[in-house]
Formats: sequence, structure tokens, C-alpha cells
Amino acid sequence: MTLLDKINSPDDLKQFSVEELECLCNEIRTLLIDVTSKNGGHLAPNLGVVELTIALHKVFNTPKDKIVWDVGHQAYVHKILTGRKEAFATLRQYKGLSGFPKRQESPHDAFGTGHASTSISAALGMAAARDLKGEKYNVIAVIGDGALTGGMALEGLNNAGDLQKKLIVILNDNEMSIAKNVGAMSEYLYRIRTDPTYSKLKYDAESLLKSIPTIGEQVAKTANRLKDSLKYFLVPGMLFEDLGFTYMGPIDGQDIKAVEDVLETAKAIDKPVLVHIITKKGKGYLPAEISPNKFHGTGAFDIATGKKIVVPNAPRTYTEVFSDTMLELAENDDNLVAITAAMPDGTGLAPFAKKYPKRFFDVGIAEQHAVTMAAGMACDGIKPYVAIYSTFLQRSYDQVLHDVCMQNLHVVFCLDRAGLVGDDGYTHHGVFDYSYLSMMPNMTIMAPKDENELRHMLYTSSKLRGPVAIRYPRGSGLGVECNNALNTFLPIGKGEILREGKDVSIWAIGSMVKTACEVAEILAGVGIDANVINARFVKPLDEELLTEMAEKTKCIVTIEENILAGGFGSSILQHLNKLDMLTNTKVINFAIPDIFVPQGATKLLLQDMHLDSESISAIIQEKFKSKVK
Amino acid sequence: MTLLDKINSPDDLKQFSVEELECLCNEIRTLLIDVTSKNGGHLAPNLGVVELTIALHKVFNTPKDKIVWDVGHQAYVHKILTGRKEAFATLRQYKGLSGFPKRQESPHDAFGTGHASTSISAALGMAAARDLKGEKYNVIAVIGDGALTGGMALEGLNNAGDLQKKLIVILNDNEMSIAKNVGAMSEYLYRIRTDPTYSKLKYDAESLLKSIPTIGEQVAKTANRLKDSLKYFLVPGMLFEDLGFTYMGPIDGQDIKAVEDVLETAKAIDKPVLVHIITKKGKGYLPAEISPNKFHGTGAFDIATGKKIVVPNAPRTYTEVFSDTMLELAENDDNLVAITAAMPDGTGLAPFAKKYPKRFFDVGIAEQHAVTMAAGMACDGIKPYVAIYSTFLQRSYDQVLHDVCMQNLHVVFCLDRAGLVGDDGYTHHGVFDYSYLSMMPNMTIMAPKDENELRHMLYTSSKLRGPVAIRYPRGSGLGVECNNALNTFLPIGKGEILREGKDVSIWAIGSMVKTACEVAEILAGVGIDANVINARFVKPLDEELLTEMAEKTKCIVTIEENILAGGFGSSILQHLNKLDMLTNTKVINFAIPDIFVPQGATKLLLQDMHLDSESISAIIQEKFKSKVK
Repeated sequence: MTLLDKINSPDDLKQFSVEELECLCNEIRTLLIDVTSKNGGHLAPNLGVVELTIALHKVFNTPKDKIVWDVGHQAYVHKILTGRKEAFATLRQYKGLSGFPKRQESPHDAFGTGHASTSISAALGMAAARDLKGEKYNVIAVIGDGALTGGMALEGLNNAGDLQKKLIVILNDNEMSIAKNVGAMSEYLYRIRTDPTYSKLKYDAESLLKSIPTIGEQVAKTANRLKDSLKYFLVPGMLFEDLGFTYMGPIDGQDIKAVEDVLETAKAIDKPVLVHIITKKGKGYLPAEISPNKFHGTGAFDIATGKKIVVPNAPRTYTEVFSDTMLELAENDDNLVAITAAMPDGTGLAPFAKKYPKRFFDVGIAEQHAVTMAAGMACDGIKPYVAIYSTFLQRSYDQVLHDVCMQNLHVVFCLDRAGLVGDDGYTHHGVFDYSYLSMMPNMTIMAPKDENELRHMLYTSSKLRGPVAIRYPRGSGLGVECNNALNTFLPIGKGEILREGKDVSIWAIGSMVKTACEVAEILAGVGIDANVINARFVKPLDEELLTEMAEKTKCIVTIEENILAGGFGSSILQHLNKLDMLTNTKVINFAIPDIFVPQGATKLLLQDMHLDSESISAIIQEKFKSKVK
Repeated sequence: MTLLDKINSPDDLKQFSVEELECLCNEIRTLLIDVTSKNGGHLAPNLGVVELTIALHKVFNTPKDKIVWDVGHQAYVHKILTGRKEAFATLRQYKGLSGFPKRQESPHDAFGTGHASTSISAALGMAAARDLKGEKYNVIAVIGDGALTGGMALEGLNNAGDLQKKLIVILNDNEMSIAKNVGAMSEYLYRIRTDPTYSKLKYDAESLLKSIPTIGEQVAKTANRLKDSLKYFLVPGMLFEDLGFTYMGPIDGQDIKAVEDVLETAKAIDKPVLVHIITKKGKGYLPAEISPNKFHGTGAFDIATGKKIVVPNAPRTYTEVFSDTMLELAENDDNLVAITAAMPDGTGLAPFAKKYPKRFFDVGIAEQHAVTMAAGMACDGIKPYVAIYSTFLQRSYDQVLHDVCMQNLHVVFCLDRAGLVGDDGYTHHGVFDYSYLSMMPNMTIMAPKDENELRHMLYTSSKLRGPVAIRYPRGSGLGVECNNALNTFLPIGKGEILREGKDVSIWAIGSMVKTACEVAEILAGVGIDANVINARFVKPLDEELLTEMAEKTKCIVTIEENILAGGFGSSILQHLNKLDMLTNTKVINFAIPDIFVPQGATKLLLQDMHLDSESISAIIQEKFKSKVK
């Protein structure tokens, strides 16, 4: 019987000795490696927090005490310890355990996360709720050094330092967010970490300082500053102290006893405490220790070698094609720059960063700043390409609208991971972008039908003025040739006729163009002659072609991998209504319904929502019977 | 001839003596008071920055040098000095000068603003653009202590401290944002300001410290910290130093010579500098000095008394009704709390704050944090009412979606200033909320037809589970009675029939219900018998009534004060299409078109967009001819 077998709830941890806990850490690491090697997942961050998570559950009592995991990709160990070790094999699978904390999944998951930097705000809300209700429990936010640079985390710190409620913020400092960390805050943390005199706890300095007497107004102020100054010498993290937190650390996060001790101390304090824990991403699995980046979020891999299990002959991904195309564009345009928010690898900008370091900006987890900084650049003749995943650009909704679109600035937004993303689930699906971008005046929105068209769109965007968004899916392209010259300018707001047909006109955008072609094939088999339009643009729409097709077929079908409300199909419907064509034209919209789409293989999810070619063609056949004649 | 007469461009300032400049300050203050007393506007913030603005234009050369005004409501003096003193009389009027910087208005307006906390990001973008192009100019961000607590400002600081580009951030510290400032950062600034030993410039401490020699790795590290510690004693603003900025200040912002001197010093430094200037909001106009809050943004007022010019017998505003209703709701529900982002007065929550201080949270300018903190509270049984203007809630788009809706938490969003706001113009119109909220699963969206219905909606929202948004307009209600008991629960997703009619069904929401009634009257005069539906809910829609009305009238008209894409009318169109009713039902959507709406009296703006009752009824008459028979 393993030690893990004995753990059915966090309570079972309490009696373990330090040696047993260390042993348990190894067992958990083995399980983490085993499951993520099959299912994929965020291995490296979880390997780093094994000791921290065990210590947390030893010192605190969830679900009464609340732990809020920032981003939440590091909550695997927490899940294993809180009654989900059997279900852990289903991690990130269709109908399986989520890769992130989820309130519906367990009472131990105090707050659902997925996007970065929310934990301090949520935890402060819980602490405030506790005090209002006169209850007694602990609230702990666990946040990485990367997520700490997100604006809302700093808003949370600022407010928490002011309210002085009992609250523990654990700064899980692994010296990198997803990529190498950036920013002045990161520099600051580095200085604390690398100072050898900070090797042991110094938070008792506080009481030492308190013993210095102060007298008289003027003298007191100077003396207070002198104390602060002395404290600055003795205690690292004075920046956090200045913001109203008691700082403790830095603590070796792989030393389970040290972590337990500091948490016990923090627990006893009735004010905001920041506990600075140093962990090592990938700890305990050599390939992940060597390349924590690669194992931040990984697909299935071979445990012995750490090599990714690749689908043989898989086409290049959209990300790879984006990556190459950016290099080509940059070569011919000195004013073109690239901006990422902590995702040089994920977005494919790493080669750009290497070749054009001065024209590359990784601003850290700070999507709002990324967008407005781009707006500032665009004011002065620079051409910024801002590469942010569709779901994370939601953070910059106001900046895209207020700073870029309102001033009609030429900023190009490259939205990778748009549409369904599969295993990461509902916090990560990029299914709102057509809608939130379509309502913005001046915005041009494109989505490529394949990876080669992505090249054309990137080229086209470089020749425009004003804001442009290009959204493309996660994963492999269609395997089409991409080595043509980069000089195809796509006419703005014009669709492409891919197939002629007289009965139905299928308008599809982006990833769904391929589906539309399959649908047309199926329909041809039952005697319905459908044409297929690759819309290319969600905004502006090809009104001319739309009018022509509506007149010709009297049945327009739209297909998109986006929420129905305010999206591509909604926009087509609106246009046809404006043109007074709806009384003579039937419109059938296929889109994601008004739900948060769960996790699972994209193919399964699409089938569930009747967005696969079989379902779509069956529904069209059914509806076609009542087509306007 | 006044001194101001001699100023046609900022260059004309350069030859003025300090005495002349001080005289000029007085003339400008007189002009500011004069124009805002007639047009309304942000008087207090501008009175505070007269000396600062003059010093900026004396030391720097716009438009070559770039000044980015955060929020931008404090840029009046800048406008007066940069060729717009004659046009200043048209401030905030229809087709007049904007109350905010605007790139289209003048080359001296380097960046358009309106929402808070964007300046550091934009300025850093400009500094990066400058360096990439090998040009030489200065970039200055002017940001208030309130806006500095906005997350994106902190993201900007963090990135700027890292990149170490030549950049000046002027912290315009007036000890309050709009209301009394909150947050740990504010506390920190207070400590700096009130320390008497910081009465003179201390930034030469830097060079003093540089003279201390350092030797040996370990010794060097300790010595470095000792230096930092000494610096912490000598130099205030170490927090900013820790983030990579050279800190200078605090400087008396009303001492024009001192400001000029510090700007000259800052200008000579090739790294990020933070200049801390202390200004007094309302300076030079006693009523504004006494009540800077009241004169932050003011309507027309009497100069002699400072009293607002009130429209006689004007109905109570929606804000006032909201304010009272919140007190009533709170009285009967101990778990109800209110959250504002630096707007206790603007939102009408000040009386709530006074009566229920423990249940009131002003988080400062930090809309993202406000929303996620509310989510945290809702997890633990507290009922948060988050009052944020429609346009500012755009900042929290992702938090509303990802933290509240995705977890289906009961948070009530109270969106004041929704629809057109008039004189503040395009950065402040709240015309996107129906669209950005409609796409969010689980969200319930309501808008009242009058101030009494606002009461019912607030009551109804308190009885629901899950996220709710209530949006209501700026300014006066319709003057209806509001003293009924607070116990009317509105059936969810049900509209209200206000007028019967068989030819056309007019569906209106919120502020446009009154217009719809007028339209029906006009139509009745030309023989068209229209019914009027007060939709009450944008989501969920009253499908049953919609079906009934579509069948009965075969013509549905929608009217809303929101952008067309993805809004109320779009949603109705979508529903009718889903119900397969569009071939037999004509739909006419009246909404704000795909433009950024300019400033001006709401009535004029609505007329321009054909959203007044005359235009709407004329268009309906025209279209009615081709109604489906």
C-alpha cells in the first residue's frame, strides 16, 4: 500500500511525519508524470508545487478554509489530495476532471480559474464576506510571479493592503511565468532571491524594529523612516510592506518543513501577509527541469525521453505558419514589431524574438498594457502585431475598443487558439471574439480557411490602415502548400466562391470552411446543390456577394466556431434584414449556442453542438423542405 | 491686452518671466471658470494643473515632444495653450471642442484618452517607437494618483521600469482621484507627502550614494542593500525606485518655478523618471477648493456662489432613485453589499457608504478587481451590487464573463450612464453594454422604462440567482411616482404591453420605451395602429410574446440606445429567425449605427442617428408600405 492510497481527504495528511510527506511527494510526482504523459497538461507548474500544496493542506482545512489557485493550472496536486485521485486519470478528458479548479467539481475548489491574476481579488472578496458574516476561516491566494504582473493582481494587492483583512497571499515564485519572466517586478524578486544574506527567515525583524522607541512628532517621523530604512536593510520585500502587507520569505518551496512553518506563522497573523515561496518548475522530472517551458503545458509525451508524442505526418500548425510568416513580413518592413503577453513560445514569436530582439516586446502577463502600448506605437509610425490568444484578448476588450478602434490606429491583432481549444475547456475556448470585435467601429476581422490563407491575411493586414484582427485555430492546419511568395493581397470585405451551386449558399468562416465543403458534398448526395462561400471577412461583410447569393438560392446557411450572439451569422442575418431580403431568403445559422462549452476533443464537442458536417447537413436537409420558394 | 492674448502656440510661453507666468495662470483660471460655468466640465482637475501644464509647455516642445494626459479631463489648459483658446468657448458642445484630448483635434494631442490608466502604456509605446526609428524627442505621461491604482497603469510601470527607455511619468498627486482616494498606494503617497523632511528635492541623493565604493561579491551585495537602505531613508518613493524608476519629488505643483526646474532635470535623464507633483484640485476657485468632488465634473454653475444651475422642477435622476433604493434594499437584507470603483458620488452610493460603511467597498479605479472581488464575495453568500458606469464596465469584460458568468454567481451589475451621455462624448457613451453582455451565458439583462421600474428591477435582481445587469441612463427620470412599496417582482424574461395595436409591434427597451410610445402616437395619426411593448429584458427575451406579436402584426420594430451589432434588436431578429418567422414577419431595427458617436446634447445626437420619434415614425411609415401581407 502506498502512502497515497491512505489519502482520501486532506485530513489524512495531518498525521504524516515529514519523512512520510517527502515520500508522498515522490508518489504524487510519479502520478503527475504518468497521467500528463498520456493526457497532456500543465506538468511543470504542478511538479513545482507538490510540497507547497501538501503543506497547505496540512496547515489549513479546506473546504472551510479557502484556497484560490491563480490561473489554476497548478491545482493538480490539490485535486489529488482532495478526493479526486482516482478521477485523476480522466484529467482534461471529455467529461473527465478539469485541468483547472472548478466549483462544480468539488467543494475544495473555492474559486474557478483559468485566466491569470484573479486570485487576490477573489480571495479578498471571500475574506470580506467572512468578516461580514462574522465567520472564522482562512483565505489563501496562491499566485505565480508571472501572474502577479497582471494589472488586476496589482489592483487586488493595493486594495488588500488598504483593507487590512486577514488574508494570505502566497507568491509562488518559480522565476518564470510561462516563458522567462519580464518586468521590473520580476527584477525586484530576482534581487531578493539571489541575495545570500536572505537565506533564513527574517520576519522577526518586525518585532526587533518595534522595540525602537519613538518620541515627538518631527523626531517620530524621522525615526519612523529610519526604522523603515533599517527594515529595508533587514527585510526583503519592502515593496510589499509599503503596500500594506507583512512580507515573509523567501522560503525554499521544496523544503516541506520550512513551508509548513511559514504557513503556520502566516496563519496566526490577522492582517494581509505575503509569503514568498521559491519553487522550481518541473522539479523531480529531469526533462521538465531542463525545459520547464516545454512542459508548462504539454501534449502527451514519452516518459523515458521526455519527447512529445507526435502524430506522424501531421500538417504544420497555424502557429508555426504564423511564426514563419512574421519573419518574412519583418524582413521587408523595418517598422513592423511583434508584441506578446508572456507567450513567446505559445504564440510562435520566439524565432521573431531571436532574429529581431529590438522589434520584439514581451510585456509579461499584461494584456491590457500590451494593447495600449501597441496603440502608442501605432501613433508614431510603428506597425505592431499583437499576438494574444483569443480568450486572453478578452482582458483587453476596452483597450481594443477605446485605445485602438476609437482612434482608428493600425494595430494588427493575431488571435491564436480561437474557436474551441479542446482539453483546456471552458475558460480557454476562444469563442467570443467575432462577437466582441464585430461591435467595434473601424475594426476589420478576418479568419483564414487554411494555413496558407493565414499567410495572405497577415500580408494583407500589413498593407491596411486601422485596426485588424486575424483569428485562427489551435493545432494543425489542413496540410496545404505554403511556400508561395508572400504578396497576395486579399480584397477587403470580399468572400471567395469555393463551389458553385444553385439551391443553397453556405457561408463559412475560418475553421468551418472545410466543414462547409464537406456539407456541400453530403448535400450533393441527396440532390441539394449547394455553393460554398469562404467569407474570409467577418467585418466588413461581402454585401454584394451576399445579395447575389440570397437572390439566387433564397437560402443562406452560415457556419462559425463562435457564439451565436453578435457573431458572423448574426451579422449576415442583420445585413440581409437591412437589405430587406429576409422575407424571400431563409437563413440558417450554425454557431455555438448560449452555453459555456465544456472540455474535450474538439471533434466531440462540435458533434455535441451539431456543428459537424453530418449534423449540419441533416439539419439543412430538414429545413430545406420549408425553404422560401 | 492680456498675456493670454499673446499666446498663439506654446512657443510664445518661452520668453515669459516667472511673474508673467504666474499672471498667466490667473488669466487661464478665469477662463476655465468662465467656460465651465456655462458648458459644464471637469473644472477642479484643470484648476489644479494650470502651473504644471504651463511648465510642461515651457520645458517641452509639442507636438514633437509628446504629452499623454491620463483620462484627459485635465487637458483644458493644454488645449488653451496649443492654439485652441478661441475654440475653448465651444468646449463639450455639439461639434465643439472635446473635453478630452483627441488626435483628430490637434497635433498637440498625442493620444486620445477618456478612460483611466492608459497613459503610461501609450507613452511607453511612443518611447519605443521613437527609439526604433532613431528619433529624439521626449515622451511624458501625466497621470493622477487615482488613475495610478488602475491595473493597466501598474502593468505599464512594471514594463517601463524593465525596458529602461527614456520616459517621464508625472504623478499628479491631488490626494484624491474623483472621490477620496483609497488603496495602499494612496496611503504610501500620503506618507511621502506628509513627511516634513521631504520638503526639498532629494534626488541628488542618488549621486551621493553612487560615491560609496563596493568590493567583493558578498560584501558588494550587502553594501548594495545598505545603499538601498540608506536611499530608502533619504529618498522617498523607493517603491518606484524598486520598480526601475528614478523618483523625483514631492514637488509643490503650484510653484511654477519648482515644477519647471524638476522637469528640466527629468528631461536630462535617459531612463524612466517618475516626477511626483503635489497639486490642489480646484485651486484658485474657492467653491471648488472646498468641494473638489462636486467640481470634478460639473454642470453649469453660478460663478459667484458656486451653486449648480438646476432645471426647475426637473424629475429625480435615475442615480438618485438608485441611491435611495439601495438603502431600502440594504435595510432588509444584511448580506447585500455595494461596490464602486472610485465613484461613490457619481454612482449615488455615498448615502449607502455613510449608512452602511462596513457593507460598502470603494476599491479605487480598479474595475477589474471590483468585479472579481464581487465574485469572491458571491461564492461565500454575500450579495454584491457592483455600480460601475456602462462605459467603464468595459474594463471588466473578461471578469464579468470569466469570473462571474462562467461560475453563474449572483452578482448584480448596476450600469449607470448607459446609452448616450451627451457632452463627454465618444469615450463615455455607454452604447456597447447590451452587446457585450448579451453574448455571456447565464447573464440576465434588464433596462427600466422609467425610474420607478428601476426600483422594481433592483428589487427583482435581489431575488435572483446568477449574474444580473441593470442599465439605466444618465440624468433625469420621467418624473413618475416612486413611493410605492419595494416589493414588485418582475417576471423574468417577460415584456409589458403598454399599448395595444394590430398593424405594427414596437419593441423598445429602457430609455427608448418613451420614444416608442411617441412613435405609436404619431403612427396612429397616419392610420397605422401600433402596439408598444416595454421589453424590460434584453436577455432572456420574451419569446412567447414575440411570437404572438409577430403572428398578429407581421411587423416587429425594435428601438434601443445601443450599437446595432449584437444588441437588443439583433437578438430579437435572431430569435425570430430561430422560430422560422422571418419570412412572414418584417423586422425593422433602430439602433446606433457602426460609428463612434460624437459629443453633444443627447437629443441632437439621437436626431442625427434617426433615433428620435419623428425620424423613427417616418421610417416605419415608409417601410410599412412593403410590409409582409
